[in-house]
Formats: sequence, C-alpha cells, structure tokens
Amino acid sequence: MTLIDGKAVSAQIKQEIAAEVEQIEAAGGKRPHLAAILVGHDGGSETYVANKVKACEACGFKSSLIRYETDVTEAELLAKVEELNKDADVDGFIVQLPLPKHISEQKVIEAIDYRKDVDGFHPINVGRLAIGLPCYVSATPNGIIELLRRYNIETSGKKCVVLGRSNIVGKPMATLMMQKANPGDATVTVCHSHSRDLKKECQEADIIIAAIGKPNFVTADMVKDGAVVIDVGTTRVPDATKKSGFRLNGDVKFDEVAPKCSFITPVPGGVGPMTIVSLMKNTLLAGKKAIYQ
Amino acid sequence: MTLIDGKAVSAQIKQEIAAEVEQIEAAGGKRPHLAAILVGHDGGSETYVANKVKACEACGFKSSLIRYETDVTEAELLAKVEELNKDADVDGFIVQLPLPKHISEQKVIEAIDYRKDVDGFHPINVGRLAIGLPCYVSATPNGIIELLRRYNIETSGKKCVVLGRSNIVGKPMATLMMQKANPGDATVTVCHSHSRDLKKECQEADIIIAAIGKPNFVTADMVKDGAVVIDVGTTRVPDATKKSGFRLNGDVKFDEVAPKCSFITPVPGGVGPMTIVSLMKNTLLAGKKAIYQ
Repeated sequence: MTLIDGKAVSAQIKQEIAAEVEQIEAAGGKRPHLAAILVGHDGGSETYVANKVKACEACGFKSSLIRYETDVTEAELLAKVEELNKDADVDGFIVQLPLPKHISEQKVIEAIDYRKDVDGFHPINVGRLAIGLPCYVSATPNGIIELLRRYNIETSGKKCVVLGRSNIVGKPMATLMMQKANPGDATVTVCHSHSRDLKKECQEADIIIAAIGKPNFVTADMVKDGAVVIDVGTTRVPDATKKSGFRLNGDVKFDEVAPKCSFITPVPGGVGPMTIVSLMKNTLLAGKKAIYQ
Repeated sequence: MTLIDGKAVSAQIKQEIAAEVEQIEAAGGKRPHLAAILVGHDGGSETYVANKVKACEACGFKSSLIRYETDVTEAELLAKVEELNKDADVDGFIVQLPLPKHISEQKVIEAIDYRKDVDGFHPINVGRLAIGLPCYVSATPNGIIELLRRYNIETSGKKCVVLGRSNIVGKPMATLMMQKANPGDATVTVCHSHSRDLKKECQEADIIIAAIGKPNFVTADMVKDGAVVIDVGTTRVPDATKKSGFRLNGDVKFDEVAPKCSFITPVPGGVGPMTIVSLMKNTLLAGKKAIYQ
C-alpha cells in the first residue's frame, strides 16, 4: 500500500510555481495577483482563506484579502466583484463560499468575469471543462488529477466510481476521469444518495473517489483488493484531544480500508493541500493569460 | 416489450407546441422564429435541415434558411452569426454541423449569442446544464428525457449505462440522468472506446442509452431481461432495397435485443423525431424568453 502524500506533492508544486514566478519577474513580468473576498467569520472559511493567502506567499504571488461582515448586502458584494473584474492588477479572484443566506451565491459566481474565475465555478468554465476546452478547472478535481498523474496511477479503461454529484467535486471529477486524456479515459460511474447499487459499484471499482461528506462511509467490505482510494471528505468531528476541539474526518474508514489498497490518500494531508495548490496553478495561468486574453 | 414510439410522441408534442403558439398569437404575441444556417450540400445535413424547416411549419413557427456554398469563409459565416445575434426578429438559430474543415466549428458555436443558442452547444448552456441551471438543453438528450417521462419509465436509483462520451449526446445525457430530477437520480456509468468492462456494465444496466455510432454494437448477450434500451445510433448503411440506396441503422441489434426489453426505441422512429421536436421546444422557450431575457 502506498500512501499518497498530498502535502509533499503540494509543497513541490508550490516550489515549481515559485520558480516560474521568479523567471517571470526576472523577465520583467509581474507577479500573479490573487484576491479573495471573505464574508463573515465562519471557522472553516477563515482557515481556508488563511491557507490560500499563505500559499500565495509560498508561490511568490501578490494576494489581497477583502473582508465583509455578514450583513453586507448583495449589491455591495456585486459592486466589489465588478471592481475586481475591472482591476487590471488583479489576475484572478475568488469569493469564499458559503455566503450568508440573503446573498445569491449563483448570482455572485456569474458576476465574476470568467477570465478571472480561478475557482472555475462560472458556467463558462464549467461548460468548457465539459466540452474539453482549455479553462479554469475546479480546484479539488484538478488536484486529484494531479495526484494521479504524479503517482503514475493508470486510469485508462479502469472502472472509476465517484461518490457524490456536487457541482464542485463529483460532477467535474467524473468529467475529467472520462475525458480523452491521461489521466482520464476511465469508465466512470457516479453514485449518490439515490443509488441503490452503490456498494456493489464500489466493490467492482479500480478507483474510488469519495466526495459524499459522510465520515467513514466507505468501509473495507466495499473496496476490492488493490483498489485506489481517493478521500475528498473533510467533515469536522468533535475531538477533545485536539486543541481546536475537532478533527477532520474523511469519507473513508481509513484504518480498515488502507490495507486493501494499492494507493490511498489520508485525511488530512491528501486531497486538501492539493485543492489549494490547484487554485495557485489557476492563478499562475491567469497571471500568464495562458487560457484567456 | 413496449416499443417506444418517438414518431407518435413527437407528433403529439408538435401539436402541443402549435396550440401554445396559437395562444401566443391570439394574445397579440409573435410567432417564434428559428433560423438555420446550412453550409454545402451534405446529404445528411440537407435532410436534417429540411426536417427542421418542416417541423417549424407544423409548430406554427416562422423559419429562415440561410445557405452557403462550401467555399464560404469563416469570416463570412461569423458575420452572419453576428447579424442573427442582433436580429430582434430571430428568437433562436442553429448552424448545421458538420462545417467544412477550413472553418472552426467551436469558434462558430462560441460566436452564437447563448440566449439564441437553441442547439445548446455554447459553453454557457453546457455549463448551466452541468450546474443544474435553466438553459437550452442539447436536443437529443432532451428528447430522450422526454420519452422516459412520457412513458413513465422509472429512473431514480436505477443503473443507467451511457455508451459514448460525445459532447452532444453522451456527456449531456449522463449529466441529465444523474441530476436531482425526475427523470434523473440514476446511477450513471459512461462507457466508451477505452472501457474494458463495457459488456459487463451493460449486462448489469437497468437502462442502456447507446450513442456510440457503431451499427448493431449492442447484442442480446449484453442486455439483461427487462432492461430499457434507448438507441441513438443512426449510421447510414447501404441498402439496395431502399430508394435512397441506404437505411438508418441503430447501435442496437434490434431483432435479438427487443424481446428481452421492457422498453426499446426503434431506428428510425425512436430518438430521431424527438431530437427535432426538442429543438422546437427550445425555440418556443426562446420565443417566450422563458430562460433568458
């Protein structure tokens, strides 16, 4: 069993990005600039945004953090989005989700100029991904593809089961795994809450990508010997032994599943760090205007 | 075994649309207007476009056909697209594919105003479909969903195998079948040329949607008893007994597969007529500005 070390891979990619940024600056170019809008003080969102800012530093990017209290109006937020759309110094930006209920997340996402939408959530980027055109790919699926690539995991012709059909993980993950590409070319099955045959599908899978948000959902009896298991789950579970009072729990019952696997990602330290580094890669692409002019 | 009669269903839908157009006109509104651009004289394209014009008449739509010879330049074609984008009288329009090799199909598709893209090929419509937002859905998958709906075929929790991963059928079909909707909520597997386990996947499927473009590819040994089989294939096969010199052949070996099925579509007369009627439905939505303003 090989433990997929997302922390080490992400550290390496950050170094690669930083080296490229140095070259860009040496050639007289400008450092990529990522802006993030954070509304309120949700613990998870605070952590994610702090980690993104830290990753920007590691990559040599400029970063800006724009904060609002939870009573910000949708109009104020949309005005800021419009301002960032027009700000030539900002290469890409994100609006950290979730947003307070009085604000339409979809409206905000669609207000972002797709050429700066480094989260890859705008319909144009989602559509281009589905069609197979260059675009900003959603960070978590892109990070998983990168792990498969760096660990030389064969995907062509393999049976890949994706658990979960969310817009930011399950659906784009399925799209990437079925594309004519390497990694890709897999036979992809998407299972979800309505699936009657989920367990059987998993048992036959060469690759399981669990993004269902239920701690310890995937158990040893669901996994065949030699399978590759990618765990996207990050549910916060109360844990008195931790300073924070909680720990992150994956969708996979790691202790019993790991011994059966050829490859498995841990939680934390697997997919999580790759998600942030994927955002950095998109920001680098944005800075280089590699996808859109 | 129930034969799914796409011809009858499509005739009924055209009547429903015509009745709605009458009401719109009676209320002082304008008839929906579909324009089609046809380049060259490809036999298949000529037939499709002629059928679309005929369907417009049956629905009470206004239709315009714009023809070019195969030596039309990309610039000329793009200028016409721009003209149709701006023409307030045109509610929706299509550019019949394939185009000659010197013209970029993708460039032409992306030049179409997504609010008039009744084929549903523009990245914005593709992306909105993936996200689950209102949009123009690609005609063939939409027609298949309509058949499942009208025949009350249960899809929730069922195992659905889609054969083929094309942008206009396989991928959007998979998206629709996995969506939180009825029809929808299926466990969806997409198989293609690289799939090693295609036969086994089919054998376990409650619903098979074949869009692989290989005549008679799905044989009786690949289908379980009671399965629903939807045949999207329309390969032209030489046939001396036909006036045209050819017949349309589906992806399914109908004679041997049909007896095992609970429901099956014939070729012709199954999915084909539904594809055209789906385009009519999108044109009606465009005329009513039901999706975009």
